[in-house]
Amino acid sequence: MDDAFDVLQRRAAADPRVIGLGGGLPSEAQFPRRALASAFLRVVAQRGAPALQYGWPEGIERLRAGVAARLRERGADVEPREVLITNGAQQAIDLAVQLSLRRGQSIAVDGESYPAALDLFRERGLVPAARPRRPAAAYVMPAVGNPHGVAMSTEQRARVLEAGIPIIEDDAYAELRWEGQPARPLLAEARDRVFHVGTFSKTLAPGLRVGWLVPPRRLLRRALHMKQSADLQPGSLAQAILDDFLERDDFAARLVKLRRFYRRRASLLAAAVRRHLPRWRLRFPEGGFALWLEPDGEAPELLLLRRAIAEGVSFDPGSMFRPDCAQHPLGVRLCFSAAPAEAFDEGVRRLARAWTRVAAGRRA
Amino acid sequence: MDDAFDVLQRRAAADPRVIGLGGGLPSEAQFPRRALASAFLRVVAQRGAPALQYGWPEGIERLRAGVAARLRERGADVEPREVLITNGAQQAIDLAVQLSLRRGQSIAVDGESYPAALDLFRERGLVPAARPRRPAAAYVMPAVGNPHGVAMSTEQRARVLEAGIPIIEDDAYAELRWEGQPARPLLAEARDRVFHVGTFSKTLAPGLRVGWLVPPRRLLRRALHMKQSADLQPGSLAQAILDDFLERDDFAARLVKLRRFYRRRASLLAAAVRRHLPRWRLRFPEGGFALWLEPDGEAPELLLLRRAIAEGVSFDPGSMFRPDCAQHPLGVRLCFSAAPAEAFDEGVRRLARAWTRVAAGRRA
Repeated sequence: MDDAFDVLQRRAAADPRVIGLGGGLPSEAQFPRRALASAFLRVVAQRGAPALQYGWPEGIERLRAGVAARLRERGADVEPREVLITNGAQQAIDLAVQLSLRRGQSIAVDGESYPAALDLFRERGLVPAARPRRPAAAYVMPAVGNPHGVAMSTEQRARVLEAGIPIIEDDAYAELRWEGQPARPLLAEARDRVFHVGTFSKTLAPGLRVGWLVPPRRLLRRALHMKQSADLQPGSLAQAILDDFLERDDFAARLVKLRRFYRRRASLLAAAVRRHLPRWRLRFPEGGFALWLEPDGEAPELLLLRRAIAEGVSFDPGSMFRPDCAQHPLGVRLCFSAAPAEAFDEGVRRLARAWTRVAAGRRA
Repeated sequence: MDDAFDVLQRRAAADPRVIGLGGGLPSEAQFPRRALASAFLRVVAQRGAPALQYGWPEGIERLRAGVAARLRERGADVEPREVLITNGAQQAIDLAVQLSLRRGQSIAVDGESYPAALDLFRERGLVPAARPRRPAAAYVMPAVGNPHGVAMSTEQRARVLEAGIPIIEDDAYAELRWEGQPARPLLAEARDRVFHVGTFSKTLAPGLRVGWLVPPRRLLRRALHMKQSADLQPGSLAQAILDDFLERDDFAARLVKLRRFYRRRASLLAAAVRRHLPRWRLRFPEGGFALWLEPDGEAPELLLLRRAIAEGVSFDPGSMFRPDCAQHPLGVRLCFSAAPAEAFDEGVRRLARAWTRVAAGRRA
């Protein structure tokens, strides 16, 4: 990420007067604190204290079985031993990149995509692009995209599958789709070249850092060695807590509740946008944590962000999501996931004020 | 690691009849379970629940300050902002490798060294060697080496510093040196080319996965970007628990107790070795978790390990620790850290029995 943005966003995050509509954080109200605390007390008291000890690089057996079972329900052919528990989804993406791409190659991504994945691609010497001539792989979020919050269309799915290249399928928000069952993963269509990536960060708590990777079968052993070299193993404590929690929790019921919760918040934030920024383009999302907005005019992005923070609201600037870092057409991601819903109206009002000033300054 | 060893060791670890003298695990008896549980309950109840939420890639400020303060006490010039919290020491070594070496280059290591580091070097396409002609970097454990448990001599320190190449200083066991203060880190001698690596895995609990990297100053920003790309951030929960724990714990007193505990265990295991394998060479270590033994004869290593496991004891075979994986001269690492001390005598007796049989088989 650009350092000017980084400095601004850290300052905004540290300032309690700023309403944070950026960041993509889950709601702390949805963290099952009491249940996690009970889980902790149980696992730390266990004989041998495996929660505090070294563990195997592939992760805890029962967690892997749970992930495999959920993927099988969605149509993918996955055995527990084919699931590697990772240090969050990010590590899973990083392993997929290292297993399938070389420096200098192009990777196809959406016109707007997940910033941390784009940063990772650049860090690994790859060229992320929306329509590269000869992509060596594709990175997609078929179920619920970020930042747009919509699923890939049937045509888009067909196109990415037809290309015959390795696919990194980031399924982070799949279970936070408001309606219906999570989509059939691309993993179910091309088991031999899809790297399926998932996480508990959105549905439970990111502080645990528990994600997973299902690599193509022929790369499973290499993926495991690579994972072990990178950091030996996923956190024993976080895995043990999660495993104990999941054994007792009704996760399906939890997802129903979460979808209702986030959908309601999406509606509230969208209503505030329509109220205060009626001319900005907004397509209501199908899931996820955020709205993607297109202002009714152009302005320097950094100027708008600075002005917004001065007014007391932060957002994620569109260039963060673009493979070429383009600032135009101006795009704004607003997250409804973490900020108090009572602050949505005032937050968007402040953003509208910043927009008016920036636009006025440019007309002057 | 060789797959035959991996299979054997996993089988041995799962078999309660086998006395585990391999593995290098800390003693579960020393995990401060109650204090960690209290810390968990406090941090999970905190406003905003930062322990469960996303955090910054560099880690928690106060942890970084604590690491910097301890390094300053030992003579190194380190600011809190120069410490990156990592997912265990392994990730810190991996970042150092990626920041200072390219595929195909040689890295100088001890004749016997830390297996997970050797695996990592190979995974990254490097050639670890005890005396490479033109090493591009050196990996050392100056304070307490693994597997020998001794400090580098003044001459060895001078030699590695004179080479003028980047140094990865793995300080994992530094605070578990029985006598005196932890050695002055090499970081204090060559701040501009030492990557200093440390961890709480040996002194507190590996299941937390909290380590650190102090890179050369000019590489700090790149290290942070690389770390962020690899897995976004170190675990919020583990860091929060650790931070809360350290604020209340007398860590210095804890270290005194740990040193006494492990030293006593080292004596007990060494006594058992002298009793049952009186002709094996043993140099009593200055710290750490293990004894390095040299049998009084040669035999196929895998055969000895298989036989030992059949007799009901496991150990770490010497080839694991060697950059060229050499099985000869035969070497055996026995850990006194994790197995119940009451089992030491019987464990070594079983190993002696296995040795007798293997040796007899070879004479026959």
